[in-house]
Amino acid sequence: MSANIAKRIEEIAAMPIYRNRQEGLLTDLYQLTMMYGFYKSGRMEQHVVFDVFYRSNPCDNGYVICAGLEQVVVYLNQVAFQPDEIQYLRSLGLFDEGFLEELKNFRFTGTVYAIPEGSVVFPHEPLVRIEGRIFELQLIESAVLCFVNHQSLIATKATRIVQATSGGVIEDAHPTSEFGLRRAQNSDAAVFGARAAYIGGCSSTSNVTAGFNFAIPVSGTQAHSWIQSFDSEIEAFRAYVHAFPERAILLVDTYDVLHSGIPNAITVGNELRAQGYDLLGVRIDSGDLAYLSKAARKMLDAEGFGHTQIIASDDLDEDTIRDLMLQGAKLDGFGVGTALITAKGCPALGGVYKLAAEKRDGSWIPRIKVSENPLKVTNPGKKKVIRFYVDQKASADLIMLDEETIPQGEPVTLFDPIHTYKRKVIQDYTVKELLVPIFVDGEIVYEMPTIEQIRSFARLELATLSSETRRPKNPHVYHVDLSLPLWELKRDLVARRGHVN
Amino acid sequence: MSANIAKRIEEIAAMPIYRNRQEGLLTDLYQLTMMYGFYKSGRMEQHVVFDVFYRSNPCDNGYVICAGLEQVVVYLNQVAFQPDEIQYLRSLGLFDEGFLEELKNFRFTGTVYAIPEGSVVFPHEPLVRIEGRIFELQLIESAVLCFVNHQSLIATKATRIVQATSGGVIEDAHPTSEFGLRRAQNSDAAVFGARAAYIGGCSSTSNVTAGFNFAIPVSGTQAHSWIQSFDSEIEAFRAYVHAFPERAILLVDTYDVLHSGIPNAITVGNELRAQGYDLLGVRIDSGDLAYLSKAARKMLDAEGFGHTQIIASDDLDEDTIRDLMLQGAKLDGFGVGTALITAKGCPALGGVYKLAAEKRDGSWIPRIKVSENPLKVTNPGKKKVIRFYVDQKASADLIMLDEETIPQGEPVTLFDPIHTYKRKVIQDYTVKELLVPIFVDGEIVYEMPTIEQIRSFARLELATLSSETRRPKNPHVYHVDLSLPLWELKRDLVARRGHVN
Repeated sequence: MSANIAKRIEEIAAMPIYRNRQEGLLTDLYQLTMMYGFYKSGRMEQHVVFDVFYRSNPCDNGYVICAGLEQVVVYLNQVAFQPDEIQYLRSLGLFDEGFLEELKNFRFTGTVYAIPEGSVVFPHEPLVRIEGRIFELQLIESAVLCFVNHQSLIATKATRIVQATSGGVIEDAHPTSEFGLRRAQNSDAAVFGARAAYIGGCSSTSNVTAGFNFAIPVSGTQAHSWIQSFDSEIEAFRAYVHAFPERAILLVDTYDVLHSGIPNAITVGNELRAQGYDLLGVRIDSGDLAYLSKAARKMLDAEGFGHTQIIASDDLDEDTIRDLMLQGAKLDGFGVGTALITAKGCPALGGVYKLAAEKRDGSWIPRIKVSENPLKVTNPGKKKVIRFYVDQKASADLIMLDEETIPQGEPVTLFDPIHTYKRKVIQDYTVKELLVPIFVDGEIVYEMPTIEQIRSFARLELATLSSETRRPKNPHVYHVDLSLPLWELKRDLVARRGHVN
Repeated sequence: MSANIAKRIEEIAAMPIYRNRQEGLLTDLYQLTMMYGFYKSGRMEQHVVFDVFYRSNPCDNGYVICAGLEQVVVYLNQVAFQPDEIQYLRSLGLFDEGFLEELKNFRFTGTVYAIPEGSVVFPHEPLVRIEGRIFELQLIESAVLCFVNHQSLIATKATRIVQATSGGVIEDAHPTSEFGLRRAQNSDAAVFGARAAYIGGCSSTSNVTAGFNFAIPVSGTQAHSWIQSFDSEIEAFRAYVHAFPERAILLVDTYDVLHSGIPNAITVGNELRAQGYDLLGVRIDSGDLAYLSKAARKMLDAEGFGHTQIIASDDLDEDTIRDLMLQGAKLDGFGVGTALITAKGCPALGGVYKLAAEKRDGSWIPRIKVSENPLKVTNPGKKKVIRFYVDQKASADLIMLDEETIPQGEPVTLFDPIHTYKRKVIQDYTVKELLVPIFVDGEIVYEMPTIEQIRSFARLELATLSSETRRPKNPHVYHVDLSLPLWELKRDLVARRGHVN
């Protein structure tokens, strides 16, 4: 491991959110019973390849922003069993002492390739490809899926919401803060969700633990209870700007936005000016945000507060935000809670972990899982994924066998793996391989990017998609095809599987 | 604190899931800026009462099972700021050193009343009532809401799913295991979600961390990848029962349930019998579960495996389970993942935390938050909640002011707080006060129940509801009324508030 890589993983693993995690048992019981089965039948050392992929985009979206790899890397780097965990497993009465001894010595020694966080990805693409002893790869399935599914889901949802603030024009998106802690599905959902939301384009979070751990900007000013705890709204405003003259964003809807909140904000804004400060903004958290924001804008402008921002919150989601903007709402920023932090409407990404190949007598034997549903038949073999760019736009992806040569500019004929008559010739392209090495034989070989790097990268990635693929409803379906050798292998294995029970 | 209470909180706080948590910063930034505002304006010591309540039942349900109190108690008991957290807050450039000093010495010293975990509760009822310094009560809002919202949501969803297995007859519910780890919204959602699901009536979880921490039964056998990793299905079955002859539940749908899985299971079942064991069950994870289970049942019965259970999984939820049972599916148990662990369809409970009263010159001044939406107007004052039982069935709840006398058997006229012409006289009742003391001046006074006690209590609580209130769609709306003094207070404050800005 190079010094830079080692330093970076040390920095990350020292974050309080990662420190002190006991994650050996963060798995489904059947992983342990299967591991015991492999142990009992002398097959622990069997080398295999598993792929993490998902079958359909969440929320009718046209893509996913993958996220969660950092959490996976920390987990794989430190997964182990503590004495109290071994004792618990012993108490279940399922396992013998030899097996528990194997767990005591457990560490992850596999090889991992993954698509970096912030990348745009599509159904059926291996997001993480893990190679190693089946004994280890069985244990880690549940946690790896949990982390990748959760963070990718929230990052994707965030891109939908942030794009809605500007009708899909990425460069014009308004600042959007993640406000969901109180409605999150417990603490990790809030904290890792805030991280994922930031990767997906949010500008800040209200969640201080997320700010503390991940160096995400934090934002927030006051609640209705603050206003109520004073005898009048203007006293509450004055007390707030007394504490934070440089961060004066005032919540104006506790009593009546247009007849109380905005007039009082203007009064306090003039007092602030006299002290050399500026009224940064007002927040409206209820009522008709389109009507109120337009009226408030006029009132503020008329009093010389043209730069004072109007921030909206109140159970917003991408649909409401889009409708508000279409109605000409004068909103400069958004706070989004429940809908973002739970990915309301699509609260799970269905990532799966499937056996792709098995080593027998030194060579890889591709494995397949058949199903009556053609979309559920897995892609066999150890694979890689490449992306073709034409004029800097992502044009199509190709899933190939690992041993295949990557095209270098020659025209390539792509065909739909289900409806093979659909063909497309691609030329004048550049090409990028998506999976990069993360672990080799249990050693980290990847210098983990900072969250700012990941967030910037996600923005660049989004910009490589056509606006049709980024459309929130009925998006253009991006081409993800199989190489001819992979397609033929799959066809042959399906045909053969029909006869093997 | 009594010795029993102290011992119990020590036991609970020692659970690895609670140990080593750093939760001082698990809050929204605006709580800290408001705390700073109180500090700067000399109002830190202001005593207030906040209520935790929600406004509508999730998933069109008729009730909520409240859960999460244990997590709240542990949090309140240990919430503090570590040196690295103070340093982070300093780095934000928002706060002065005097304030950071206050945080260094922060501990919770308030008084808490709460409705015990496992209780059936309804909209607008204070589930947790917290009294203390506004400086402390502001900090804890976000985490308290997060825990109560999440665990109550999942416990409630679990009751919907478990009841669906027997058409709503609680006593006849089939064992239902929580299988959602891989689709949970990160680790805590999986682990605390498994706890809540168990409280709500699930019989076990696949999540080993949840089993380890909370002593929940764990279950699970093998995945498709186990079957695939052998050259044939029957070899895979034999290897599994070799490892676990006493826990033989075989996954029979990898290739073909009726032509391969069940015949192979019967062969292995006969081999098991010859060794003195029994084939406990088969699991079907794909295909038409109604058709397949009926056909499989016949095949098993015909070969003398009448006691072998048929377990179903495959993206189940309460609606699918109900439909399967209505179609006569022969299913003895269920594994439910995504829909349960994310509460798909309703992934957040909208619990809020609202100021109810403020102490001024030694007496409590009730506080209200008005809104154009009558359902959003808060109930003012320090309150309690009582439940009337008639013939052992919960008949109505009454929210009262804390100083009111609880009725002792005399006829009581209840009226709907919004549509006051709706009246109901209740007599021949018994009465229970729902809020119980948890903390007094920062000291725990509550002996925390075990999870088995909570789960049994939840089952008893459900049984106090009519089947009409437990109906999954369009349930009977349970009566939650306000006492006349509370209603009058609210009316007067609303009238007065109209003139105070």
